[in-house]
This record gives sequence, structure tokens and C-alpha cells, in this order.
Amino acid sequence: MAATAKIVDETADLAGYMRGLGEGARVAARELSRSGTAARNRALTASAEAIQAGRAELLAANRRDLDAGRDLESALADRLELTEARIEAMALGLEEIAALPDPVGEVTDVRSRPTGIQVGRMRVPLGVVGIIYESRPNVTADAGGLCLKAGNAVILRGGSEAIHSNRAIAACVRAGLAEAGLPADAVQVVETTDRRAVGELLRLDEFVDVIVPRGGKGLIERVMTESRIPVIKHLDGICHVFIDERADPEKAVRVAYNAKTQRYGTCCTMETLLVDRAIAPEVLPPLAERYLEAGVELRGCPATMQLVGGGCEAATPEDWDTEYLAPILAIRVVDGLDEAMDHIATHGSAHTDSIVTEDHSRAQRFLREVDSSSVMVNASTRFADGFEYGLGAEIGISTDKLHARGPVGLEGLTSQKFIVLGDGHIRQ
Amino acid sequence: MAATAKIVDETADLAGYMRGLGEGARVAARELSRSGTAARNRALTASAEAIQAGRAELLAANRRDLDAGRDLESALADRLELTEARIEAMALGLEEIAALPDPVGEVTDVRSRPTGIQVGRMRVPLGVVGIIYESRPNVTADAGGLCLKAGNAVILRGGSEAIHSNRAIAACVRAGLAEAGLPADAVQVVETTDRRAVGELLRLDEFVDVIVPRGGKGLIERVMTESRIPVIKHLDGICHVFIDERADPEKAVRVAYNAKTQRYGTCCTMETLLVDRAIAPEVLPPLAERYLEAGVELRGCPATMQLVGGGCEAATPEDWDTEYLAPILAIRVVDGLDEAMDHIATHGSAHTDSIVTEDHSRAQRFLREVDSSSVMVNASTRFADGFEYGLGAEIGISTDKLHARGPVGLEGLTSQKFIVLGDGHIRQ
Repeated sequence: MAATAKIVDETADLAGYMRGLGEGARVAARELSRSGTAARNRALTASAEAIQAGRAELLAANRRDLDAGRDLESALADRLELTEARIEAMALGLEEIAALPDPVGEVTDVRSRPTGIQVGRMRVPLGVVGIIYESRPNVTADAGGLCLKAGNAVILRGGSEAIHSNRAIAACVRAGLAEAGLPADAVQVVETTDRRAVGELLRLDEFVDVIVPRGGKGLIERVMTESRIPVIKHLDGICHVFIDERADPEKAVRVAYNAKTQRYGTCCTMETLLVDRAIAPEVLPPLAERYLEAGVELRGCPATMQLVGGGCEAATPEDWDTEYLAPILAIRVVDGLDEAMDHIATHGSAHTDSIVTEDHSRAQRFLREVDSSSVMVNASTRFADGFEYGLGAEIGISTDKLHARGPVGLEGLTSQKFIVLGDGHIRQ
Repeated sequence: MAATAKIVDETADLAGYMRGLGEGARVAARELSRSGTAARNRALTASAEAIQAGRAELLAANRRDLDAGRDLESALADRLELTEARIEAMALGLEEIAALPDPVGEVTDVRSRPTGIQVGRMRVPLGVVGIIYESRPNVTADAGGLCLKAGNAVILRGGSEAIHSNRAIAACVRAGLAEAGLPADAVQVVETTDRRAVGELLRLDEFVDVIVPRGGKGLIERVMTESRIPVIKHLDGICHVFIDERADPEKAVRVAYNAKTQRYGTCCTMETLLVDRAIAPEVLPPLAERYLEAGVELRGCPATMQLVGGGCEAATPEDWDTEYLAPILAIRVVDGLDEAMDHIATHGSAHTDSIVTEDHSRAQRFLREVDSSSVMVNASTRFADGFEYGLGAEIGISTDKLHARGPVGLEGLTSQKFIVLGDGHIRQ
């Protein structure tokens, strides 16, 4: 546990300091590219052991952050806090990552070409990943562990309110790396609370291959504007459920209720419910009753208000474009599948959208034509999650179209290069 | 053939004009996402027919560009010129694209999850592609055709010196689209010679999903600096061949000679030859003789100069970092595989690098550890090409690590979204 170095509060040469992290990460990434699966897995389990053994130090470091953060609002302070259970969960998470299959080195699509060469693809680490996050110190272990598993070096820039916790956790992981004979600089924490460090990190395109921002919309927007490095991100989660005319009413109510109420604050929570006019009288009143029982505030179009009666306010145009992350739901009655898909194309955020229908052709059209990272049939939008999809763990969710789309697991932290095998072959 | 509209030389509202192209492309992309393989293929063959039928108009439009470009240097004028053969090649290229398998709609990796849902991936178009290119008008048909095949709308910004040719070619493709019942705005040419149009295009992140710049380093650098949209690009092609101690000398000479001399001006031409000290006396003198016969200027390290004698100048440090694109070759004698890979990591451009060796372990280390988009064993770097790799055609070559790496074919113009199939499933 080496969380003793001085935190760099005022850095004379911030750019030089950040550049040093970049150079260290690049060297470590090359060493990692030579490492085997066994060594990386050993580093992960050794990190888990160091976290369990270092419980007292972690709690002490966290206490310093909590003391310094007495003025934080309670939700923030709650996210910042490390408990025995959360420390145990971090260690367990690292062990689970160690148990996942190694994506690196996989060779696929090898084909012989008419010229005699063989062409294939090899999966390789991306190189150096930069993670920018807020509050929750467990990201230090979770994201660091995923990057390491995929053979990448990582530079972690957590919130300044969690800096002692993050350093203490990183010290455990660095001890695990050393024990496995891997370079400790494969996992580095930015040890300054200087806010300009984020800007400097986003300019390290010479050393860093991808940036993953995890946090609120303000952070994501800043990263999008400033980064010279490719970014894996998601900005908004304005997710829809469309109840088609040919939906099974019972499934429709179940799915639409779950998509809103199973958890309010997640990016794959439904924010707008679309209902076909033909089935609205059958499904909307019972659904509204359940939502109101659960304390969900309803904001509807005129047709919705007519069907639901009291307890539903009038939706304003802004409601269709709002990610509430709260017990609020916008409801709109539409005339058929095309109007529903038009609404999603206009107001959605390309995150997750679901249709409830028993009609095969409409289900197929919805799957094909809705341009979102996850498109579902007869399932709650809340399933859009790396664990639920069987990816093992996720580094984040991407609403971009390039590289990784939807929940991003280990594969999204790798790349495929071409390999060519010849026997003295030349091009004619 | 509707190449009659006025070219917008001075646009009062350039931003509004470009935004209009973006909006048109976005609408067309949604229509294309509904189209079937047959309709897109029909559009491609109808475009080919229109190009063949429009030969005279194409030559006339090209003549206007050539007349206006009388002051162009001869290499540029040559690239600008359309001949009967080049027109035929464009038409044939579109027919070949029509014959390729459709990447869109492919569903893979469908798995049942313990919760009962099925999760899979569906390959879908990226949406709207922006292509920025110089001189060669055939890119209008080639790149436009590839984007269309993959279900994307495209905005084409060619060089102003080729604007009449580009418009005439685009008119043929738009006629083909109309004949197949697809929206003509799926293929749009920027009809202004205003240089600021490139900057405006790079700001259309609301409408354009990816930018593919094809041209010289100046263009690529401008796009990298200004673009708010993800870019598929390659900047440099500083490619290496390393002749290992355990190379077969005959294969080594053959591969190293071909990698340099088969064509001088391509991005996958070898620019630096690395030779293990142990085998250098055997392979370097005969190789140097062949290079000098072919008129290749040699620039070597001291050990190389000693072995090769006259006809080899002293290399300067800049030589290791230079993409000559010319009959010039840098040669360095190294001490073993690690020094060769260090040289490639330091001076290479992550494009294409090849090892010549009979040693299996070293071949495997080179394949695994060299971090380039194409890594080869006993094969000429000149194979790094979409056709040679069996991709059918390429939109460009990427030295980036995210999304697409190496030659980018149809697959690089698509994305994979998650699909989830349930039967009323909800998250617990």
C-alpha cells in the first residue's frame, strides 16, 4: 500500500506531469502486449487479495475523502462512501473479471486468397485507455480491472472528492500487477485535483487510444467538445416502449410497468411510452393506475389525458425530449407503427427502444428500422446492460455507432488487426 | 442526367446550404434503412448503365474541368482526366459492388440468457457518410456505390477542380437510385467550390455519422483537427520489412524487393528495411544491387554502408520517420527481433509491417507484438489492400484502432446493434 506520495495540488508543470503519465502508460501497454493470459489473471486475483487485505487502509483513505467532503449533498456522499460490503464487492468484481475468457489473441476469419497468402484477423488490446469518472471509487477497481484483462494500460481520472480512496484502491491493483510481474504503470491514477488535468488528458492523443467518460451529462459534453482522442460514450437515454395494436395486453402492461419502475435513475429506464390508438383504451387505464400507485407522475398527450382522466398532466413539447431519470413518464397515443418509429427517430437518443407486439412483420420492421443501440421485442428496456447481455461486465454503454454500440464489454476494449501469412509471397 | 443546376460559387448562406444536404441525407438514410438488398443492387446496376449511356456527357463535363485546370501540374491533370477506359472501369466497379454479399441485416451471436431473453447482434448501416476527396472523379462512383451498398446515404465533397465531372457522375448514380425507387438524395455532391464547405461538412455532427477523407496528408490533418464527427483515416504509411536472422535469404530478397519496387507511391510500400546483423552480409549486397538497378536511392546506417559500399548514402535521423512515396529506401542493420520491433514502435505509423523468417516463435511474437493495422510473415507489404484481402472493395485504409483497422470494406461502413427478443420478459 503506497498511497503516501504527495497529492499534486498545484502543479508547476501540469502538462509535463500528464505527459509523463501518458509515456508511462504507453511503455506499460507494450509490456502488457507481451504478457500472457495467466499473468494478467494473476494480477487481477492478486489485486483482489490486496483489496481484501487492505480493508483498513481503504476505509481510512475513504474517511479522509468523506471528512473533506462534509459539504457534499447526501446522494454524492453516499456514492463516495466505501463500506465493508462495497470493498468486498470490488474484490469479488476483480475475481469475476479474472474468470472471464481472454479476448486477446483470438484469430478469426483466416482465409486463403487466390494469390496464395492467408489473411485473417487477430484480436489485440487497444493500447492505452483513459477513464474519466465521478464520485464512485469502485470504478477505479472495476474499470481498471477490465482494461487490464483486455491487455490495456489505463489512466484513471476520478473525481477530486474521491482522490484518497482512488489512490488507495489503485495502490492495491498496482501491488497485484507487481506480484504478477507486470508493470505497475499499467494502472495509474491522476494524482492531482487540478481540474485542468482533464483537459490535458484529452490532449494526450499521442499516448492514449480511447477515452471513456463515465458521469453526468456535463462531463460527457465537456469530453465530447475537448477530446482529440476517440471517445466511447453515451449522452442521453431517452428510451421508448411502443405498445402496438397487436400487443398482448397483459405482456404490454407488464413490460411497460417494469421498463419505468424497476429503477428510475438508469439510462435504460423508459422515459416515453407510445401506445397505438387502437389498443390505448384497453391498456392505458390499467397501466396508469399501476404507475400512479407506484408514485409515477404522468404527462400525456390529449388522447392519453382523455383515457386516463385525472392524475395525468398535459405533456409539453419538451417532455418528448427529456430524460427524467425520475418517477415521471411521458405518454403519447400514436397512429400505428410508422408514427411510433417517427417519434423515436425524432425524439429518441438511439439508446434502447422496445416494441410490444404479437405481429411478426411489425416486430421485424421495428428491429430493423429503429436505429438504436439496443432494439427489443416484448422485453423491458431495463435489460440493456452488459451483465444481462452476457458480456460479463461492462465498461460503459455507447450510443455511438462506430466501434462499439450498446453495452461495451471486454471486446469493446480490443481491436482487430489483419494478419497475413505467406511463404515468400509477393504482389504481381 | 440532371447536371444542369448552377454551381454555387458564392453562397450567401453556406452553413444553411450544407445543413440542407445533411437533412436530405438523413431523410434518405432512413428510407434506405427500409430498402431491401434487391433495390440497392438494382440502383447500383442502373447507375452503371447510366454511366455507360452517359459517356458523352461525362466526357464533356470532364472536358470543362480539364479546360479550367490548364494550369494544374501534369500528375494532377492526369488524375482528373476521364477516358473511355476509366468510364468503363467506373461502371464495372459499380456492377462488382452490386455482386458483393449484402452486409446489412445479418444477425449473429444470438444467445439465450438465463432470464429467458435472447440477445443477438444485427448488422445495420452507419447512416450518413461524408467523403472528402481530391482530384480523381472515379471516387464519386466507387465510394458512393460502396456507401449505397451498405445502406448509407453519402455526401461527397470532391476537389473543386473536378466539380463538373463529379456532378455528372453523381447525376448518373442519382438516376440509378430513382430507377430503383430509392431516394436520389442518398447520393449528394457538394455543389460549391467554396473551400469553407469542408469545414461546414465537418461540423454536421447532427446529420453525418462518419467522415472518410481520401487524399494527401494536408487534407487528412485538416480533417483530424476540425472534425466533430468520427473519422476513418490513415495518415502515414511508414511500412517496414524486417529480415530476421533465420530468414530464407531467397524469400527475403524477393519480398523486400517487391515491397519497395512493385509500386512506389502507395501507402503500403515499404519505406524502411530492417536487417538482422547476422544475415545482413548475405542478403544486403544482392538486394542493394537489385534496388540500384531499379533506380532506387539507398540511405543506410553505417553498418549498411559498409556492407553495400558505394551507391548508398548515409541515412539521417529524419529518414527513419519519412514516408518517401518515391524510389528511395532507408536501410538499417539491427541486433535481433527486439531492436527491430523497438524501431517499428518508435518510427512506424502502425500501417503495415512484415517479418521474413523461418522461425515460428519469432513469427508469432512479431504477429502479436507489432501494433500495426496489418502484420505479415513472409509476405510483401504491398498485399495490404481490400481486394487482396478479399473484402471486395475498399473505402480506404484505417490506421486508427477504433471501429475499423486496415483496409476498410463494406463491413466498415456498417455497425452492429443489439437485438433482444422476449415474450413479455421483465427485469427482476
